[in-house]
Amino acid sequence: MSGKPLLIQKAAQLVTLKGSSTAPLRGKAMEDLHIIEDGSVWVEDGIIRSVGTDAQVREQVGSRLEEAEVVDAAGRLVTPGLVDPHTHLVFAGSRENEFEMRLQGATYMEIMEAGGGIHATTSATRQADEEQLYQESRRRLDQFLRHGVTTVEAKSGYGLSLEHELKQLKVAQKLNRDHPVNVVSTFMGAHAIPAAYKERPDEFVEQVIREMIPEVARRKLAEFNDVFCERGVFTPDQSRRILEAGKEYGLAPKIHADEIEPYGGAELAAQVGAVSADHLLKASDEGIRAMAEAGVVAVLLPGTAFFLMAEMADGRKMVDAGVPVALSTDCNPGSSPTISLPLIMNLGCLKMGMTPAEVLTATTINAAHAIRRGHEIGSLEAGKKADLVVFDVPNYMGLQYHYGSNHTRTVIKDGKVVYERD
Amino acid sequence: MSGKPLLIQKAAQLVTLKGSSTAPLRGKAMEDLHIIEDGSVWVEDGIIRSVGTDAQVREQVGSRLEEAEVVDAAGRLVTPGLVDPHTHLVFAGSRENEFEMRLQGATYMEIMEAGGGIHATTSATRQADEEQLYQESRRRLDQFLRHGVTTVEAKSGYGLSLEHELKQLKVAQKLNRDHPVNVVSTFMGAHAIPAAYKERPDEFVEQVIREMIPEVARRKLAEFNDVFCERGVFTPDQSRRILEAGKEYGLAPKIHADEIEPYGGAELAAQVGAVSADHLLKASDEGIRAMAEAGVVAVLLPGTAFFLMAEMADGRKMVDAGVPVALSTDCNPGSSPTISLPLIMNLGCLKMGMTPAEVLTATTINAAHAIRRGHEIGSLEAGKKADLVVFDVPNYMGLQYHYGSNHTRTVIKDGKVVYERD
Ligand SMILES: [Zn+2]
Ligand SMILES: [Zn+2]
Repeated sequence: MSGKPLLIQKAAQLVTLKGSSTAPLRGKAMEDLHIIEDGSVWVEDGIIRSVGTDAQVREQVGSRLEEAEVVDAAGRLVTPGLVDPHTHLVFAGSRENEFEMRLQGATYMEIMEAGGGIHATTSATRQADEEQLYQESRRRLDQFLRHGVTTVEAKSGYGLSLEHELKQLKVAQKLNRDHPVNVVSTFMGAHAIPAAYKERPDEFVEQVIREMIPEVARRKLAEFNDVFCERGVFTPDQSRRILEAGKEYGLAPKIHADEIEPYGGAELAAQVGAVSADHLLKASDEGIRAMAEAGVVAVLLPGTAFFLMAEMADGRKMVDAGVPVALSTDCNPGSSPTISLPLIMNLGCLKMGMTPAEVLTATTINAAHAIRRGHEIGSLEAGKKADLVVFDVPNYMGLQYHYGSNHTRTVIKDGKVVYERD
Repeated sequence: MSGKPLLIQKAAQLVTLKGSSTAPLRGKAMEDLHIIEDGSVWVEDGIIRSVGTDAQVREQVGSRLEEAEVVDAAGRLVTPGLVDPHTHLVFAGSRENEFEMRLQGATYMEIMEAGGGIHATTSATRQADEEQLYQESRRRLDQFLRHGVTTVEAKSGYGLSLEHELKQLKVAQKLNRDHPVNVVSTFMGAHAIPAAYKERPDEFVEQVIREMIPEVARRKLAEFNDVFCERGVFTPDQSRRILEAGKEYGLAPKIHADEIEPYGGAELAAQVGAVSADHLLKASDEGIRAMAEAGVVAVLLPGTAFFLMAEMADGRKMVDAGVPVALSTDCNPGSSPTISLPLIMNLGCLKMGMTPAEVLTATTINAAHAIRRGHEIGSLEAGKKADLVVFDVPNYMGLQYHYGSNHTRTVIKDGKVVYERD
């Protein structure tokens, strides 16, 4: 990479989150944003070279300043690019009818009979060819970018057969190559039991383990392996087998855990050494304790509870219990059809009782650690990727105080200005 | 007014809300959006001249089409410009510190001692000169526009003395003249009891009645007169006297009612013939019934409950009880620092159980009726002002289904394109 160096200058608040690259932040440390006032960042070749007050950076850079492109952040907030560590980005179709039926009082069964539910998305995703899937997903990725997000995790799991799971993962890979936003892939063949396997779920589990995981790994199409561990979907035992099988092929475990009832998902996450356990609305106290001890990141999805009109996971309690907490959109067409990580932060404050500093940590460095990227993104330090956002508020509290708006003004990815609001 | 005619053409859904100009919609009628598919709108001199399918409109307009500017809405949703019927738009300063303290567990008293609360805003607003107040408020109005809002109501009430109330109202009037968004003014001298009058509230009430209302009316600085009827603020008896006094001077009554406890505010609204009663979290069943009978619009403010982490007003129940319901941001620096009417609609669905069609009615024609503008805005019919929004979703459900985003693509005010997203 070459091109001009870049100076992001004079941020009213530059949120650096310094010193957090090796492990996610927990407890009180989640409020240590390491803010520099009148802060500047010097970037060359897509990498942050210098971070400090404007005076410090100018002195270090010296006459090279003259060749640089300058982004003026005076009066504004600058943070690391936001990271969304849990999305189902790649899918076809949309299900707004189902949503309206629900608000009009339809029962779950009526919605299913009208063709709703996850199988509607599976069917649409299977029917879509790679190009269509790519275009629909790319539009969502454009929207993520406009909301300050520079890296998203993306799960497969609407194919539910080798062919269609590979198709989803190939689309994610292609998006990662083509689009400014980085896409980190997770294989999630165990997202649901396909209709055809309803009476013989173990056969499907075997298919995931023997057929899908090896092929996904061979083609290097994913870094993580995720499973929906919930009564009526995959049992803790099935989940463990799937996650262990993934580990043998180098896929790090993640888990959709304890969303509907306490089911041992948080405990399992700690036992298998999962990178993250996600949802956790009903996680047991022992499960939370086990996660804190094992250092499993809790990826909380308040948008899903909001959209499903359910109770939230207890973010406040998990932070206080020493679990490293991250937040995510859970972007998907059934239970969270949003791309707005800014709103997710608002919900983290207003529905989970987290503070403005905690929710920012939870969508930058802790989210980066939830996808094993803490070493290269999520904080603003020399040597890291130059992924930054300029927000149209004077301080980090403004993002939450002025709730319901997207304050993103400028997005910088790998040292290039990739989005600027008019 | 002159300029080119305008054709907004081929909306996938054109929400007209036809036939609603004389009275707000209630009950089942709130879901009758009167949608035209492949719909077009013809505008001349800032006024809607023709509404129908694209074929119908083209036939009516004939060769005059050639001179027109065209906005292509193919694949998109077009609605009346959104109307926000309850804001405290004109104020100085911001109170994010107070918000953070609250999330960090500070008590109400600790926040007050740190200089928080409404008196902080009163003090900042009194100190600000007209120009500063204008600039700060104008920036908010710009943001409203970018979120599809073409008319806002704006209340005074941070001056709390004749001089400073007039200053706020003059700023609102100037904004109405200068800015594409229409600003409809409400006098709200009875927003709080100033610190100096704490021990003699009736003296302040007399000042509002004898000094402020006549002068505001004489200068034609407001159309409405609002009062904060709540225990510890203004009693129902004081509120009634203030609202009746306003009526004598031609100011139509509005009321902040039953936010904290049932206090007879909804009943009072019906008795004095208020145009709207607002908040209503704790309105009694009799109060709701009285409002339905008297045709008082309920202006619900779900953002305020969201931001204060309180329970919502029961929007579902009020719609079912036949009260005409409108929704609003309540934009203000203490209890609802947002300009996002799109998020307010999401909250109407997800926290109040209203349907996607109902919340759109509640932010267009019913909101227009809540500020006595039903005859000129809020629906798309020949003879009305050409205030329209093009949204980047294919149908009205999409605004709520894809929650948390601002889908506004193009805003047309008085027949002119005043905002277009890049
Ligand atoms: Zn998920
Ligand atoms: Zn108010």
